[in-house]
Amino acid sequence: MNIAIVGLGVIGGSFAKGLQAAGYNNVYGIDVSESTLKTAVNQGMIKKGFVEANDILQDMDVIMISLYPNQIAPFVEQYKNILKDGSILTDVTGVKAAIIEKVSKVLPSTVDFVFAHPMRGSEKKGIIGADHTRFIGANALITPIPTNKEASLQLIEKLYKEIGFDQVTRVSPGKHDEQIAYVSQLMHVLSVAVVNSQQASEETLTFAGNSFQELTRIADINGELWSELFLNNRTALLTSIEHFETELNAMKLTLADNDEDELKKIFKQATSKRREWY
Amino acid sequence: MNIAIVGLGVIGGSFAKGLQAAGYNNVYGIDVSESTLKTAVNQGMIKKGFVEANDILQDMDVIMISLYPNQIAPFVEQYKNILKDGSILTDVTGVKAAIIEKVSKVLPSTVDFVFAHPMRGSEKKGIIGADHTRFIGANALITPIPTNKEASLQLIEKLYKEIGFDQVTRVSPGKHDEQIAYVSQLMHVLSVAVVNSQQASEETLTFAGNSFQELTRIADINGELWSELFLNNRTALLTSIEHFETELNAMKLTLADNDEDELKKIFKQATSKRREWY
Repeated sequence: MNIAIVGLGVIGGSFAKGLQAAGYNNVYGIDVSESTLKTAVNQGMIKKGFVEANDILQDMDVIMISLYPNQIAPFVEQYKNILKDGSILTDVTGVKAAIIEKVSKVLPSTVDFVFAHPMRGSEKKGIIGADHTRFIGANALITPIPTNKEASLQLIEKLYKEIGFDQVTRVSPGKHDEQIAYVSQLMHVLSVAVVNSQQASEETLTFAGNSFQELTRIADINGELWSELFLNNRTALLTSIEHFETELNAMKLTLADNDEDELKKIFKQATSKRREWY
Repeated sequence: MNIAIVGLGVIGGSFAKGLQAAGYNNVYGIDVSESTLKTAVNQGMIKKGFVEANDILQDMDVIMISLYPNQIAPFVEQYKNILKDGSILTDVTGVKAAIIEKVSKVLPSTVDFVFAHPMRGSEKKGIIGADHTRFIGANALITPIPTNKEASLQLIEKLYKEIGFDQVTRVSPGKHDEQIAYVSQLMHVLSVAVVNSQQASEETLTFAGNSFQELTRIADINGELWSELFLNNRTALLTSIEHFETELNAMKLTLADNDEDELKKIFKQATSKRREWY
């Protein structure tokens, strides 16, 4: 089986390493950077690297597109005429419905596209951050579309499991986006808003403890990527922010009213819900 | 030097352990629970335990009050007539101005009170969570008041350093409360609001990654303690929430307007500010 990884950044590079480690010998890399490809070959991540997708794509059975969200549909459109019949494409994007809509408009019927979301990001960028062990124990989501063949879905699920993912769950694109807006994108919104607060200063660290450090970690954000992720999911994200604000306002009210009983009730609910999860 | 720890919870117990480890042999415990005192003696945390503060307080040189915020002034008032002349009291409360105001009304002029805030909390409760190594490398704040003797401030600073604290910084009570509202209390507000969102469900963990787990950790909150901390600092906390909301609204606007340039600017600012700190 010939596998191409398109885009050897931190995620693509990690997949390449993971697939090699899992025993796949025919993993090829496609990247705009010659030096990235050289690094990938030298580190044994890929068998060979190509700057021109045209030179290799027609021989690939699986094509994992690890590009920025807005680059995926244009990539498919550009190379749709050379894709091997029956080949399986897949992505690693953190939003689904908008990407599926764009890709579906250009996808040839001779290939299958399994939309997937490996859930283990990184603040790092580029191939130097690639490390397949990051996926060990991580979860992934697959968002099937009506045209997917069951065999294609199962192949991608198998590859994920083989490189260390724990749970690989199928979920509808709409539900994916709604939940990701809540559990991931909202966290980034909050972290960024905290760091950008006018209260932030050079002295902040004199006062800060663990919780501030943890909560602001993801404010060191890849803005190029996350602006695309946010805007491709902006309706769901705005809804998540509104649900959050409902709870924020409830807490503000207890402060304004000096209402200890209500505040304790709110804390009790949070404690009990958090403990159900972890 | 005779030292009493009043309230052998997770913080008081940790201080007792730390002081013993630092070579102070005359550390006594005062607690409402006989079994807590027994545990403390058995674990070598204190020399002797007392349910009745009356039985020991008059002999103490340093009295560390590790009670809930609203119990501190009543404790001082109850025992003010038996305190040894020249003794030094200190607290471990996470808010300052409101506590100082209440304590100042009842504090005899024959003793000194050094208001302090060790900044290393815990989700654990009670003496079983006591562990003095938690303080190693932690920071603490001292909020001097005009009546403090320099020698008293220095003694408390010395004790903190001896049990492992890294930086012990003096700061005005007002500034303390303003900054703590931002770096600590606001984090708890956000975490609780996230967990209480109506989007939270049994399925949440299928979608959640590291950031959700980290950000919601402190929603498992000691509601009895934190309701007192919030309400004793509610003006500053409301201000911190408002500054946060300003940034949240700026981000909402970029989503509503699909404004990629402005969103990238916001991310850039956050990334650069976060990197100045860590």
